[in-house]
Amino acid sequence: MAGLKDKPLRIGIAGLGNVGVGVLQVLDRNGDLIAARAGHSIEVVAVSARDRDRDRGVNLDGIRWVDDARALAGDPTIDVVVELIGGDEGIARELVEKALQAGKSVVTANKALLAHHGVALGRLAASKSVSLGFEASVAGGIPIIKTLREGLAANRVSRISGILNGTCNYVLSTMRESGRDFAGVLSEAQELGYAEADPSLDVDGYDAAHKLAILASVAFGIPVDFDSVYVEGIRNVSHLDVEYAQELGYRIKLLGTAVLTERGIEQRVHPTLVPVTAPIAQVEGVFNAIVVEGDFVGQVMLQGRGAGAGPTASAAVADLIDIAAGRRLPSFIPTDNSGLTTVPIAEHSGASYVRLMVRDQPGVIADITAELRTEKVSVEAMIQRRPSPGNPVPLVFTTHPSQEAALRRALDRIARLGTMLEPPTMFRIEA
Amino acid sequence: MAGLKDKPLRIGIAGLGNVGVGVLQVLDRNGDLIAARAGHSIEVVAVSARDRDRDRGVNLDGIRWVDDARALAGDPTIDVVVELIGGDEGIARELVEKALQAGKSVVTANKALLAHHGVALGRLAASKSVSLGFEASVAGGIPIIKTLREGLAANRVSRISGILNGTCNYVLSTMRESGRDFAGVLSEAQELGYAEADPSLDVDGYDAAHKLAILASVAFGIPVDFDSVYVEGIRNVSHLDVEYAQELGYRIKLLGTAVLTERGIEQRVHPTLVPVTAPIAQVEGVFNAIVVEGDFVGQVMLQGRGAGAGPTASAAVADLIDIAAGRRLPSFIPTDNSGLTTVPIAEHSGASYVRLMVRDQPGVIADITAELRTEKVSVEAMIQRRPSPGNPVPLVFTTHPSQEAALRRALDRIARLGTMLEPPTMFRIEA
Repeated sequence: MAGLKDKPLRIGIAGLGNVGVGVLQVLDRNGDLIAARAGHSIEVVAVSARDRDRDRGVNLDGIRWVDDARALAGDPTIDVVVELIGGDEGIARELVEKALQAGKSVVTANKALLAHHGVALGRLAASKSVSLGFEASVAGGIPIIKTLREGLAANRVSRISGILNGTCNYVLSTMRESGRDFAGVLSEAQELGYAEADPSLDVDGYDAAHKLAILASVAFGIPVDFDSVYVEGIRNVSHLDVEYAQELGYRIKLLGTAVLTERGIEQRVHPTLVPVTAPIAQVEGVFNAIVVEGDFVGQVMLQGRGAGAGPTASAAVADLIDIAAGRRLPSFIPTDNSGLTTVPIAEHSGASYVRLMVRDQPGVIADITAELRTEKVSVEAMIQRRPSPGNPVPLVFTTHPSQEAALRRALDRIARLGTMLEPPTMFRIEA
Repeated sequence: MAGLKDKPLRIGIAGLGNVGVGVLQVLDRNGDLIAARAGHSIEVVAVSARDRDRDRGVNLDGIRWVDDARALAGDPTIDVVVELIGGDEGIARELVEKALQAGKSVVTANKALLAHHGVALGRLAASKSVSLGFEASVAGGIPIIKTLREGLAANRVSRISGILNGTCNYVLSTMRESGRDFAGVLSEAQELGYAEADPSLDVDGYDAAHKLAILASVAFGIPVDFDSVYVEGIRNVSHLDVEYAQELGYRIKLLGTAVLTERGIEQRVHPTLVPVTAPIAQVEGVFNAIVVEGDFVGQVMLQGRGAGAGPTASAAVADLIDIAAGRRLPSFIPTDNSGLTTVPIAEHSGASYVRLMVRDQPGVIADITAELRTEKVSVEAMIQRRPSPGNPVPLVFTTHPSQEAALRRALDRIARLGTMLEPPTMFRIEA
């Protein structure tokens, strides 16, 4: 093994938060094993972070400290820049661009950066014949990027769908298990450290949408385009919906789904009812899971920890091992030439779940079903409990597959019926 | 894309059974997409199989027919030999050896060959600086070899455990769902084509053991060694066990497990009780699933179709794409230098499930528990139903973790008690 140390892969790490420290720990603790697997050792020669004095519980002796992370890009002693700063603009973007320009490979966990600027960065990396590794940007420790680009590369993918945000999955799982409502579970999750003080990036679906945009690009060979993703978070999921879904044989998950339809590719993140018997319905708590459908392989599901220092560092170091071993990562440039376009959510066709809060009076159901019939939306199942006097009555139904725009028109008119006490709640169902 | 055709990867396929035909279909139907992903097209220049005249439903025009598969090894027009003949000796072994000797990369689905001769073949491939691809040999379309060697390469693996044989999982799932016994479900599975006419390779655990030997080698960097695997099939699982397991909160799966213990590595295939809440317990029917535990990534589970033409061809072509793209596959030679040895099953320590069929008479339980106490085996839970007159009474218990040899000694003596009507049934429990 002595010879391996002669030509190590020299890396510079920008950002020493949880994940950056995790990368240092992986390389420290498993360095020998990694060197044996890669054929070369991986050596951290420089690090950069905001606060030099903070105690991070790792030994930085012998590692150069760089105040401005962007200096790593031009440093001739560094082969690969590991970008763990985050954010789709600012220093992270500048650093990645400069490093690629300088002919260095880059490994990043920055999903926002790739979701917004992935096309340009992928082309830049390809033009310089260097690797742009982003396994750590999606689903933490689950090697979904490698699986899509290499493990399942023989397949034409028709659909990829996943639980991409552990915070949302924790909140929804806990709502189901405890019967409590969104707000209470969220504040508990914040106390437990499972949700951020500002939870918007998670619970409004943007984090999952960043990841979905990357997955859709890799799975279908289309340009990564965050703006093509329809995004709807979980704030409107009530404990009533969780319970009715259960009664109808479903669980509610925040799924990111990219699917090839006759009209193009749908990319959407929204609360989704999945049959309780589907493998993905069993994935609870902070776990992530992704189901890929390929024409020869059928359905493959990967499940694991989607966040956290250890899993995310595991993914970032896997990219480094590929590079150290001389396995250049597949390029992140569009490969599809068929002119696939994004289908707007209004053109989505599928089954839906609807909950209406109605006043208990004669003719309500007749009014509602008349509006549905006008739009050719056909009801599959309906639940109405016996009302308790003076309380609004939940009227819940599922539809057979119908065009989203038609259902929306019907619900808009239903919302204006005098008997509605709340705006309608609608979630999509996936088989 | 025209330039890609200029330097295709030229392959010869030996064996045109389901999987061989599947590979031809993948390359035919997804050739453009594969060329775009690999940067080079993959061209089948020769095939070899037993019967030239059989109609396989694929077009072989323009592909050279070779009567003796071994001739592919020396053919200068072939870059990679795809071995899909099967069997751990004979033509398959000769072909793979000769091809590697001749400096050709080899892709194979042959688990038996690798389980028995993997060390020599891995060293040969490494000495010739060529790739030996065997993704298709384990778990069909699930990219577990790539996941272990590349996706999770940053981790020290502590355990790998999986449902590696779809036939056994189908039989066990159907026993549970239908309440029927092994023999009836097996013959139905044979009629449906889910089990072979000679089911021994599957139901006696050997197929799973071949795969486990390969997985253990890759996960722990140890030499692949089929003889180190303890193998026990599912013939002794009765519908009673399935029901009692359920009552105790478990499902019975044929698991292949390789685990790092203080004394070395255990490699074992046997019916296993897993908690009904464990993700792997939810994997039913012909599906395979594998759980990997790594020190940084935690638990990752992969699930998919473990057999069949499409999934297995998907895996074989993935290896071909790596080779075509210039990504040499990691070598299949032992990387662990710590002198890890295999722990015999007698030294296994774990919880167990035991079912005894006893005569209903006073003192039986006292006799049994006395023998257990002598061997320091501690009972965790016990179930005894009210007996129906004249029938044997099932007495079922689970143990706290204990050494297997001690439990075996106790059961040997219990078996000789005059009150036992059948030999004891014992299965291991995994948390």
